[in-house]
Amino acid sequence: MTSCPLPRSRYEKILLGHGSGGKLSADLLQRIILPAFENPTLNGLEDQAILKLPVSKGRLAFTTDSFVVKPIFFPGGDIGKLAVHGTINDLAVGGAKPLFLSAAFILEEGFAIDDLDRIVKSMSLACKEAHVELVTGDTKVVDRGKGDQIFITTSGVGWVPETCSLSIANAQPGDHVLVSGTVGDHGIAILSVREGTLFETPLQSDTAPLTSLAQLILEVCPETRCMRDPTRGGVASTLNELAIASNVGVKIQEAAVPLKNEVKAACEMLGLDPLYVANEGKLIAVVPSRDSEKVLAAMRNSPLGAQSMKIGEIVEDHPKRVTIQSRMGAERIVTLLTGEQLPRIC
Amino acid sequence: MTSCPLPRSRYEKILLGHGSGGKLSADLLQRIILPAFENPTLNGLEDQAILKLPVSKGRLAFTTDSFVVKPIFFPGGDIGKLAVHGTINDLAVGGAKPLFLSAAFILEEGFAIDDLDRIVKSMSLACKEAHVELVTGDTKVVDRGKGDQIFITTSGVGWVPETCSLSIANAQPGDHVLVSGTVGDHGIAILSVREGTLFETPLQSDTAPLTSLAQLILEVCPETRCMRDPTRGGVASTLNELAIASNVGVKIQEAAVPLKNEVKAACEMLGLDPLYVANEGKLIAVVPSRDSEKVLAAMRNSPLGAQSMKIGEIVEDHPKRVTIQSRMGAERIVTLLTGEQLPRIC
Repeated sequence: MTSCPLPRSRYEKILLGHGSGGKLSADLLQRIILPAFENPTLNGLEDQAILKLPVSKGRLAFTTDSFVVKPIFFPGGDIGKLAVHGTINDLAVGGAKPLFLSAAFILEEGFAIDDLDRIVKSMSLACKEAHVELVTGDTKVVDRGKGDQIFITTSGVGWVPETCSLSIANAQPGDHVLVSGTVGDHGIAILSVREGTLFETPLQSDTAPLTSLAQLILEVCPETRCMRDPTRGGVASTLNELAIASNVGVKIQEAAVPLKNEVKAACEMLGLDPLYVANEGKLIAVVPSRDSEKVLAAMRNSPLGAQSMKIGEIVEDHPKRVTIQSRMGAERIVTLLTGEQLPRIC
Repeated sequence: MTSCPLPRSRYEKILLGHGSGGKLSADLLQRIILPAFENPTLNGLEDQAILKLPVSKGRLAFTTDSFVVKPIFFPGGDIGKLAVHGTINDLAVGGAKPLFLSAAFILEEGFAIDDLDRIVKSMSLACKEAHVELVTGDTKVVDRGKGDQIFITTSGVGWVPETCSLSIANAQPGDHVLVSGTVGDHGIAILSVREGTLFETPLQSDTAPLTSLAQLILEVCPETRCMRDPTRGGVASTLNELAIASNVGVKIQEAAVPLKNEVKAACEMLGLDPLYVANEGKLIAVVPSRDSEKVLAAMRNSPLGAQSMKIGEIVEDHPKRVTIQSRMGAERIVTLLTGEQLPRIC
C-alpha cells in the first residue's frame, strides 16, 4: 500500500492545544483520525457510539489494554497495529467474535503528526483485515517530558455464543496443551531493535489477529477448555495463571516448544528464557486429549497455525505449578517471574 | 467511609516489574486492584469480561476516555473518580443506562502504591454509587520520567432503548438550550490547586454521575434532541459542535448562565471566559420549546440539577455559529478556542 502524503498544515508536531477540545482538537480529528477510520458511527462525533448488535442471543465480551511499547515502530508492526491486535485477541481467545473497538490516545507535546498519521493508518488497516470497526475514541495531550511520544489504550466489544464457556479455571488432568506456533518472536523482535541489530535479517514481530484461528479451534472442538494469548510474561506466565486458576499441574516438554533459530540464538546470547518472552500472534489452547490430534491438524492447516505443536499436558501432580522437562530429561519448575525481563514490550 | 490501612508490603512504590505480567503484577492485582472492585467477573481474571445484557432489545452504547488530570487529587475528587464519572456521563448523555466499565492504568515507575490504593478505592465507590461494575482492566508501567504518576483510561458499555435517538445533529430552530447548573466549577477547582489557593474555602470540582438526571430528562421529554456533558472545552465548545453538526445557530444569554461567585471572581482575576472552562457533573440538554418549562422544573427537583437554567435558544440565523448576548445587550461570537486554556484539566 502506498500511503498518500499528508496534506501540509501549519502544525507538524503535537501541541498542547491538540488536546484542548477546541479548534486544534477538531483539526486533528478531521485531518488525521477520521479519514483513517472513516465509518458513519465514528464520523457522527457523538460522545459515545451507539451500536446494533448482530443477534440478540449470546453474551457480550468486553476487554481493554494499554500499549506503551518502545520503540513505537518495529519490524513487523507498530504500536497502533499492536493495540488493535492485542485487544482483538483478548476477545477472540474468549470465544468472542470481535465487533467494535475504541482507541484512546495519550500524546506527548512535540510528537510528530506524521508519525501519528502513520500509526492511525496502520490501525485502520489492522481493523479492516480483522473485520472490526473502530467506533469511538479520545485524544489527550500531556506536556513534553510527561509522556513518551504516544500511548494507546484500546478497548473492544465482541459477541459470544450462548453455548461457549471457556475459562482458565476449566483445565482438567489429562488435557493437552497446544501452542499455535513459534514462541518469543515479538519480544525478541522488540529487543533486537533496542539493542541494535542482533540479526542480519531483522526478526519480525508475530503481531496478528487470532480470530479465525480461535474460531476454527472452537468449531473443531467445542469442548475446548480455554484459550489464551501468551503476550506479556510469555507462555510461562499464561500457564502459571492457568495452573493456579484450575488448581492443576502443567507439564511442558522443552523439545516440543517451537522456536525460531534467531529467537533461540538471541535468548542464549542474552540469557533469556524464551518461555517468558512476549508473543502477539500466538495462542495456547487446552483441549481434551481425545480431540488433541484433530485440533492440531486443523490449526496446522490455518495460515497462523502452521507450526502448531502439542507442548505439554495437564497433570494431577504438583497443582498450581508448571514444570518443564529438558531435552536431557531433567524436570524443573517454571515460576512466575518476580521482576521485569523486558519492560515496555507491549 | 474510613478506609482500613493498607497491609504493609515490601513495595511502597511502583516498580517496572509491576507491569511485567509476572509475580509483581499478580501481587498488585491481588493486593490493591481486586479488593477494591470485588466482583465475580473481574475476579475471574480472564483476558476479557463475558457479560449478560439485561434485555435483548435495544442497542449498545460504547465510549472511552483517557484521564491525565494534574494534580491527581483535587478538591471534590481525584483522577479515579473523574475517570469513572467521565465515562459514565458520556454513556448517560447518549440516553444509555451505563452497565460496565473497564479501566487501564499507565503507572510511572516510582508512583506511591498508597496513592494508587486511594485512587482505586475512590473509583470503586464511584462505581457503586452509579450502579456500574468495573469488570475488566489492565496495568502497564513506564520508566521514571516517561509518564506522570498515573494516567487512567476508562471505557464503558451501556444499553440504549430502541426508541431513543439523541444526536448533536438533531437541534432545530426554536429549541431551548438548558444547562443543569453552575458552569466552570471543575476547571477552576483544578486551577485553584495549581495556582495556590485562590479562595478561602476551596472550590470543589463538580464531578458527579449524570445518569439519573439524564434519564429523568428523557422521561419528561422523550423528544429531547440531544444531551452533552460540557467537559474539556466547556459549554462554548459543546455548543459549537452542536451548531456545526445540526447546521443551526445557537444564541446564549450571558445573564442566564449560572456561575458560582468564586468561579466568576477567578475568571475575572485570570482573564478566563467561564464558557470555556471544563465541567464534570453538568449536562446541556436541547429540548423543543413546548417542553422546556416542564423539563426545567423536573431538573430543578433533581439533586444534581437544582440550579438548572435555560441559557439560550437554537436559531436559524448564523448557522454553525454560537453567539452570546451580554448583560448590556451587545452580541458577540463565541468561537472554538484554538489554543489550550487549561492543559490537563481531565
